[in-house]
Amino acid sequence: MKIIDRHQLIEQLNWRYATKQYDPARKIPAADWAALEEALVLTPSGYGLQPWMFLIVDDPKVRAELLLASHGQPQVVDASHLVVFATKTNYSEADLDTYIALMAKVRNIAPQALDGLRNMALRSVVQGKSDIERRHWAVNQTYIALGNPVTSAALLGIDATPMEGFEKNRYDEILELRARGLATSVIATLGYRNATDKYATLPKVRLPHGTVVQHV
Amino acid sequence: MKIIDRHQLIEQLNWRYATKQYDPARKIPAADWAALEEALVLTPSGYGLQPWMFLIVDDPKVRAELLLASHGQPQVVDASHLVVFATKTNYSEADLDTYIALMAKVRNIAPQALDGLRNMALRSVVQGKSDIERRHWAVNQTYIALGNPVTSAALLGIDATPMEGFEKNRYDEILELRARGLATSVIATLGYRNATDKYATLPKVRLPHGTVVQHV
Repeated sequence: MKIIDRHQLIEQLNWRYATKQYDPARKIPAADWAALEEALVLTPSGYGLQPWMFLIVDDPKVRAELLLASHGQPQVVDASHLVVFATKTNYSEADLDTYIALMAKVRNIAPQALDGLRNMALRSVVQGKSDIERRHWAVNQTYIALGNPVTSAALLGIDATPMEGFEKNRYDEILELRARGLATSVIATLGYRNATDKYATLPKVRLPHGTVVQHV
Repeated sequence: MKIIDRHQLIEQLNWRYATKQYDPARKIPAADWAALEEALVLTPSGYGLQPWMFLIVDDPKVRAELLLASHGQPQVVDASHLVVFATKTNYSEADLDTYIALMAKVRNIAPQALDGLRNMALRSVVQGKSDIERRHWAVNQTYIALGNPVTSAALLGIDATPMEGFEKNRYDEILELRARGLATSVIATLGYRNATDKYATLPKVRLPHGTVVQHV
């Protein structure tokens, strides 16, 4: 275990901000990016089911198309990396079986030994929810994943912007997600702030501590 | 800026796991807990609106009541801290005005200078969404907040468990949330793993990298 100092944590979380202008010339080094992808994959989820897909859009042509569906927010093309957080819209029993088989393999046990977990997840996620509830559940998990690379990037000194202001349906079309049982939930851009971004130095606006944190 | 090493980040994210058994005798030191609360408050949200409330349940009697609404998951009483992530169920124009007034004060500008932001958020969040859509939007934001202390705790060497398996309505009743326009979305326990927790040493189960991360 190699823990960090709490002051360092808070300093980096204060350093981060929703970057508006990226330096288009600066790319995240491959080793740092690999770490951020690894952080993404390590995101916790309900029962560990990971009902998501992370699309990293490298192709400048696709980025330019997505910009047209992003109310012109330039981060979509200027940031080093663009991550589209897609959600499995209808998590199925087959998805669950794939996961259970993987767990049995990774932990070197018989799948039957996981019947308790399988039944619980089946009842809770697949059978116990309507289609729309199941979709909302999966979107919620995807939002856990959104926070992870944003915080992780801040710790590595890399800027990030979680973004909701885009046309989800057009993203789904451009990335051909629907036929794969996926839908865009949210996106994030990552890279390095441009010196011209006036938002970098504005003080953060957070509701007073006591109005959002209460001890009971 | 005091960045950390990427290996350290990944090592700590691998160190964490959904802790099942906490050492009830070990409390998170006050200074570390204060940092985790600060990390919570610093969570990014759409337009910065923070449509949430974090309830830290310290009272053992309330914890015991909540345990009865948590399918007996012992973390609820054994962990050092229990955080209930509540969501503002009907984010309103008045909430927005509170936020805009705060931003004007923090940044020392006239509220009118923020009319553009106010109108955009008003159209997008308050007027442009049905009640149920607005609620889902706020729940999504709350799930960003869930990930933050979980990742932050891992970096500080503190265990954490995000938890969905509880009765939300009963939580809302016990904590008297409804009358305040709040609803429980998700909870997390934080503290220190017990040596008896066999899950601590099981290998993580993550879907193969290429099936959840794709470059486009």
